[in-house]
Amino acid sequence: MHAVIMAGGAGTRFWPLSRRHRPKQLLCLFGDKPMVTETVDRFDGLVSKDEMVVVTSENLGDVIAEAVAGLPAANILREPEGRNTAPCIGMAAVFVREKLGRTDEVLAVFPADHYIRDTATFRRLVSQAAEEAKKGAIVTLGIEPTKPETGFGYIHHGAFDAEGVASVDKFVEKPNRETAMRYLADGNYLWNAGIFFFTVQTILDEMRRQLPTLAGQLEEMAELFRRGGDQAELAAIFERVESISIDYGIMERAREVRVLSANFGWSDVGAWDALPDVAETDEAGNVTMGDVVAIDCTDSILMGHDKRVLAAVGLRNIVVVDTEDALLVAPRDRVQEVRAIVESLRHREGKII
Amino acid sequence: MHAVIMAGGAGTRFWPLSRRHRPKQLLCLFGDKPMVTETVDRFDGLVSKDEMVVVTSENLGDVIAEAVAGLPAANILREPEGRNTAPCIGMAAVFVREKLGRTDEVLAVFPADHYIRDTATFRRLVSQAAEEAKKGAIVTLGIEPTKPETGFGYIHHGAFDAEGVASVDKFVEKPNRETAMRYLADGNYLWNAGIFFFTVQTILDEMRRQLPTLAGQLEEMAELFRRGGDQAELAAIFERVESISIDYGIMERAREVRVLSANFGWSDVGAWDALPDVAETDEAGNVTMGDVVAIDCTDSILMGHDKRVLAAVGLRNIVVVDTEDALLVAPRDRVQEVRAIVESLRHREGKII
Repeated sequence: MHAVIMAGGAGTRFWPLSRRHRPKQLLCLFGDKPMVTETVDRFDGLVSKDEMVVVTSENLGDVIAEAVAGLPAANILREPEGRNTAPCIGMAAVFVREKLGRTDEVLAVFPADHYIRDTATFRRLVSQAAEEAKKGAIVTLGIEPTKPETGFGYIHHGAFDAEGVASVDKFVEKPNRETAMRYLADGNYLWNAGIFFFTVQTILDEMRRQLPTLAGQLEEMAELFRRGGDQAELAAIFERVESISIDYGIMERAREVRVLSANFGWSDVGAWDALPDVAETDEAGNVTMGDVVAIDCTDSILMGHDKRVLAAVGLRNIVVVDTEDALLVAPRDRVQEVRAIVESLRHREGKII
Repeated sequence: MHAVIMAGGAGTRFWPLSRRHRPKQLLCLFGDKPMVTETVDRFDGLVSKDEMVVVTSENLGDVIAEAVAGLPAANILREPEGRNTAPCIGMAAVFVREKLGRTDEVLAVFPADHYIRDTATFRRLVSQAAEEAKKGAIVTLGIEPTKPETGFGYIHHGAFDAEGVASVDKFVEKPNRETAMRYLADGNYLWNAGIFFFTVQTILDEMRRQLPTLAGQLEEMAELFRRGGDQAELAAIFERVESISIDYGIMERAREVRVLSANFGWSDVGAWDALPDVAETDEAGNVTMGDVVAIDCTDSILMGHDKRVLAAVGLRNIVVVDTEDALLVAPRDRVQEVRAIVESLRHREGKII
């Protein structure tokens, strides 16, 4: 099995801690390691470092490489331009095929910036899903929904068999609130966390069938990998690659998809307000980091900067994130609006966004 | 007339902007001048710079001198130790007496860290109070109360005459809330703002009568001023001086005190929450300073640091004060508790408090 870690994201939802040059997967939101490092380390004992492929963007390549220092440099694939998940996964698939000279290797595809609490369960499920994938199906791990979330896609599935595997009927896109509530009540819907298992053969077959243009471009990349071509050549191919997600491009019409219910304490850690669900909180429900003096604060997120003391009094559900050159203060239920802030700062000089 | 500006205060209520080495009177809380500078400038046209005496502490002496750069250096009196207002005013009185060689000069005593909106009214009242003080009484300016404030002393007075002057019956100390509400309803109480007018003769007579030990020590200071003694000699006198306020030591039992009602838009700017009453606010009631991006914030105080953008979303009645090495976030009605923060930081190295 090879693990394929997708680490090309460039979101702004953790601004001001996250920046163009330091997106979420590079942040140490809990513990002392960047999320991409935690994601890689989670595979310890399952796959060796040689069997790990990290796909990221060209401009993040060096910092990502530093964050996953145990990996061979060749296993860090740098996309010249972000083209969503289908080209990303396709490139990793042909890379592994060319490296091994065979197509029966299982790929375990994971986003680099998700939280998984229970590593033991994670490993058990990854092993089971990999075994299942060897049989030729696409296998996904679905997350049992705990609320009518409108921010995720859903997986509609049939009955689970004795091994806890079910057939996927349908991948459905982000629902509205009403539909999400129906999914939650139905009991046969899981959240799509973007975690997939398949053999190189299976995914490339699906790509040839559903995304033939991309499949052709992937063969150009394979040729480039074989002869050790450079980034400029890769860029020349990417220029022609269409941006498309694996969900829309492959999953929604894939031949055979099976799903395992993943109960390993998952969170996509979508924004600041998600932090108390996954990071350590004090007895008043606060997440604090850095040099913080908090008096009578509850359910707040207080991220201090190491050069400054953050003094907080009487805060309820407030997010404070202090950095060298930018400071954010907002109620927890308004943190989605950092996008508007980042937008309004776009004209500025420097790395403030 | 000589103006005597009391600029020795060392409060912590504007932390983290105010520090031991930069107390409130040195802050630019509105406009671009420190409050002590605004206080001095307010006397422009009433008294010359030669006729202004600023009393401050030894450790603030140089920064205060810089802030009131137009004054003769000799007019900055540096108390070796803070001994409250009676010794401060007494020292200024003997200083002026020795400088002029006479005792009929009127002293106009003002705190350095108060806000006065209406300078024209201020000047009219100062002129009138000075004329009144020439007759021999102690004259004070009282502020018409707008709420049952428990943080100020009150002045109980009789009926105002045709000139708007009344006899003071009694200075009363800070009341509890119930008493403050009674004072407010009564209509014959004004806030004591620590603003006094008297001749050198009058105040020194009162000191000899009510605070004879201090009066004797003031004569030692006078002797020192005459022969140009140094700070070490002044310190030797101050070591023996008792700490006592002008209100408690003189005013409460003074022979004759008269009061004018001062309607010039006064505020003692007691803490962060007072700022919107005196500083410019935007249409949503926010006071902002520095590099601030505020989205849907109301009635908040957003003091950014010049090296950082302060991004605020959805804040209601929140105070954010950012500085080089400390950041405060608190609801407006909790800012009094910065004292607790400062207390908890007292053990730290450096100038953080």
